[in-house]
This record gives sequence, C-alpha cells and structure tokens, in this order.
Amino acid sequence: MALNLEDYVATIKDFPTKGILFRDVTPMVNDGAAYREAIDQIAAFGREVNAELVAGPESRGFIFGCPVAYAMGVGFTPVRKPGKLPRETVSCRYDLEYGSNELHIHKDSVKPGQRVLIVDDLLATGGTLEAVIKLIEELGGVVAGIAFVIELTGLDGMKAVEGYNVFRMMTLSDK
Amino acid sequence: MALNLEDYVATIKDFPTKGILFRDVTPMVNDGAAYREAIDQIAAFGREVNAELVAGPESRGFIFGCPVAYAMGVGFTPVRKPGKLPRETVSCRYDLEYGSNELHIHKDSVKPGQRVLIVDDLLATGGTLEAVIKLIEELGGVVAGIAFVIELTGLDGMKAVEGYNVFRMMTLSDK
Repeated sequence: MALNLEDYVATIKDFPTKGILFRDVTPMVNDGAAYREAIDQIAAFGREVNAELVAGPESRGFIFGCPVAYAMGVGFTPVRKPGKLPRETVSCRYDLEYGSNELHIHKDSVKPGQRVLIVDDLLATGGTLEAVIKLIEELGGVVAGIAFVIELTGLDGMKAVEGYNVFRMMTLSDK
Repeated sequence: MALNLEDYVATIKDFPTKGILFRDVTPMVNDGAAYREAIDQIAAFGREVNAELVAGPESRGFIFGCPVAYAMGVGFTPVRKPGKLPRETVSCRYDLEYGSNELHIHKDSVKPGQRVLIVDDLLATGGTLEAVIKLIEELGGVVAGIAFVIELTGLDGMKAVEGYNVFRMMTLSDK
C-alpha cells in the first residue's frame, strides 16, 4: 500500500477541553485517495464478516459508515442523539466521564437475524460502541463486526468490543 | 429506472414540533438498492459539473455527501456546528424561523479555485445551503453544483440556490 493513512490524522492539543489530545480524521476524509483507501479497507472487512447492513453513531460514524454501506451495496442505519430520529426508536443511556449520553435507533431499521457492521471513527473508552452494540442486539440483529479507524490506547476501550470481530485501522496513543 | 425513490421517504406529522410535516429519508438510506441508486444519481451530477470535492452540512448532509465523494473518488469536507471542528475555521451565522444557527468549515479544507459539490438531504427555506455556499466561496472555492434529495415546496427555498447548477431528486409539499 502506497498511502500511510496515519499521515492523514491531525493531532490537536487541548481539544475540546484542556488535557485532551484530539485525533482529527478530517485530513483523511478531505483527501480523495486517502478517503477511498480507508473506506475500501473497512468495506473489505465488512464483506469478510458477511455484513448485510451498516450502522454508525452520529456524526463521525456517518462519515465512515455511509460510504462503506454504499461500497458494499447495503443499507445504513444512523444511531442518533435524542430527538433526531422521527419514528419509533429504542434507546440506550450510558455514562461519560462527565455526565451521560443517550443514543437512539429506529425500531424497524434492523431485521431479526440481520448481520450488522458497526462503523465509527474512534475507539476511546468504548462507551459509544458498547451502546450501539446493545441497541442492535436489542432489535435482534447480529453484530457481524465492529470497525473503527483509530484505537486510542491507554483507555482500555478494547474491552468494550471483546468477543466480536474487530477491524482497527491504526492505534494511536491518547497522550 | 425500476425504483421509485419517493416510495422510500416516510412522512411524519408534527415532528420535531407541532404543525411540521417531516420528510424522513432514513427508509431510503436503510435500503441497499435505494441508497445506491440515490447516491449514483447525485454522483453522476457531480461528474457532470466536474466537482473535485464534496461538502455537506451535519448530519444528514454527511449521509448523502460522504458516499457521493467516495463514488466520485474525491474528498469530503464536513460543515459543522460550533465546537466540532478542531482546527482553524471560518464560520457563518444565519437566521432560522426561531433563533439562529452557526456553521463552520475548516479553513484549509477547500483550495482556491477548487470546484465543490454541495450535498444535503433537504432544501426547505434554503438557509443552511446559503450558509454553506458562503463558506465555500469565502475560502476561494467554486460552487460547481448543489444537490439535494428533496425540495420542500411552499418555502421558496429555490431562491437560495438561484444561478447555481442544481440537482433535485424529488419535490414534495411541506403541507
């Protein structure tokens, strides 16, 4: 592979708050060749695990998950914050370092037994991905695989996806 | 064309607030064949207008704009609410029916002279698309075309995109 996708991740100190080293994937998304390579890698994994649907949490999960769904020729189901999805949903509340978050998925978006690939940009503590897994399984879906661009080390996030087929494009430190 | 994409739009009364007839594109996105057809139509338009980059506002603009960028082999630049983009941005504030909204774009995401295709799910009053146009032109980009899935009639939104190359997949009433 000619492209080193790590070269397309920017690192920003103290964003969004002091002490956080933020890994920014927008340079990868902004570059046609790098973006295509990243999506093709995830889509190849999705085919390997026979996924029939892609799901991703808003908003950066959309940026990677939607083109993966398109490349695979399958649908995409958005996992969103409260008040965004207009039809009947199931929801999952989970704790963040400060406060909590709640994610929703449309009740009719996953068929029982359907094999779902979960896509996001980042695995940090794993709280978001854990919630997405829960929602898909609550609807009777099968988590065929979980793909993310970056694993942030030092936060123990891999525990959240233990026992699942995982595709991780790169590993970067949170320090 | 075998698929009628209008069949994949759900209509929800009184969402998000009383009196609003909400047009919901998630059934189209959730269906592999319909989603692919929709993206292919927009990508064909993007090629016609020689777009070199796709831009879209969060979050539904990502759902359509990102796979269009992938299909065309070009990059995608997200247009986001305040506090979401970690590097230097330019911003545009615009009025909504109640209150106002502010959108940001990374300063280095559009090259001077670069031809940009703007993608969103919906043209309502046109305020959001007008803001995206302004941001791209402020960075020296050329708005090669503007594509959206649904034009809501009765809100005069087409005025916002007058003089630009426009692709509109379908027209639905706001009543």
